[in-house]
Amino acid sequence: LTKEYALIVAGGMGTRFGSPTPKQFLELRGKPVLMHTLETFYRYSENINIVLVLPSEAIPVWQSLVSEYGFNHDIRIVNGGTSRFQSVKNGLKVIHGQALIAIHDGVRPLVTPEMIGESFRLAAIHGSAIASVPLKESLRVVEDQDKAHARSSALDRSRYRIIQTPQTFQGDLIKRAYETDEDQTLTDDASVAERAGFPIHLFQGSYENIKITTPEDLMIADALMRRTDSL
Amino acid sequence: LTKEYALIVAGGMGTRFGSPTPKQFLELRGKPVLMHTLETFYRYSENINIVLVLPSEAIPVWQSLVSEYGFNHDIRIVNGGTSRFQSVKNGLKVIHGQALIAIHDGVRPLVTPEMIGESFRLAAIHGSAIASVPLKESLRVVEDQDKAHARSSALDRSRYRIIQTPQTFQGDLIKRAYETDEDQTLTDDASVAERAGFPIHLFQGSYENIKITTPEDLMIADALMRRTDSL
Repeated sequence: LTKEYALIVAGGMGTRFGSPTPKQFLELRGKPVLMHTLETFYRYSENINIVLVLPSEAIPVWQSLVSEYGFNHDIRIVNGGTSRFQSVKNGLKVIHGQALIAIHDGVRPLVTPEMIGESFRLAAIHGSAIASVPLKESLRVVEDQDKAHARSSALDRSRYRIIQTPQTFQGDLIKRAYETDEDQTLTDDASVAERAGFPIHLFQGSYENIKITTPEDLMIADALMRRTDSL
Repeated sequence: LTKEYALIVAGGMGTRFGSPTPKQFLELRGKPVLMHTLETFYRYSENINIVLVLPSEAIPVWQSLVSEYGFNHDIRIVNGGTSRFQSVKNGLKVIHGQALIAIHDGVRPLVTPEMIGESFRLAAIHGSAIASVPLKESLRVVEDQDKAHARSSALDRSRYRIIQTPQTFQGDLIKRAYETDEDQTLTDDASVAERAGFPIHLFQGSYENIKITTPEDLMIADALMRRTDSL
């Protein structure tokens, strides 16, 4: 029997945001961003097993938010590491047995239950299912970045994909992949799995599935959610 | 004496939008999107020379909006072509003499006067100045796109740039570049200039400088403008 897990990475302390509140805890339409994200996974399935990775110093803050908002769910909380890579690795350690694991950014509250379901379905077939979208704008590659006037060249944007989360994997596969050493080029879970030689299967994410990393992103998320609420 | 021109391309009839109103005419915070864009160029400089390229069937609509909103500016209107490439080419034909030309999408109302100024300043020095931003998310390249399970590979996203407008050029340079034949790979003005062998100089655009192509984009633009208004 295969169990479905969501490994939610909410590791950052949000130093980029210019706000003392870590960005995963900022309020969006009446509740913390991270709570929206978790609720969407429960809307997908009440039986999903959630592993939430938080920086240790953020755990008491989260616990007070949980009681303030009456957010009563049986979530396994794990201490984050010094990087996203280490945080995911810590989260994977508590998952055992035959599993499908959707790794997802805590600050992507606009993921939908449909997208989550699609990622589990496809990962069961292909080993992995990575949300991605085509580029809407032109793309260039820069050469000699260190030079004052870097040369750049036009690319055929139809061949490129912007990568989002969820990134969903068969449990054995992603756990084995994360046995590798961390390095700077491993910016997401798909690149870790690719490094280990596993096939990467992309599926269609959504332009609305944004990552909240700036105050502007929070306003954009608010506008997109307001629209969804009114439909 | 060098004159500064803005060549505003508002060519699309917005079939993607599911709205009978072409997207450049949709209302955003009390006025058409295109009017916001043009006003930002006038905020940069009252003396800028604007060439506005519109599909011929949209010109009467625009003229009625101009009188409805009392938008009194001396703008040269040019008929659009069958593609963005042809529209830009038509616009360039009416510009003569020593010029710097900022080519800009009519549906990017969130460009700022500062960005426009920077593009003119840098194009005077380097021949071109192309607004661009780094990628915030991971990027993959797809091989064998036609196959059901396309293979893809992780890329080092720090080497890539998303391209926006304004794309500003010395007039002689971009007019000569547009003498080339149109083809599908020429998705923006920088790729046309590159094809002709001219140097491409990138400068820092802004994540807020979005292109409005969907109803969601219109909501996002509204949210971003509301923030700017309240600062």
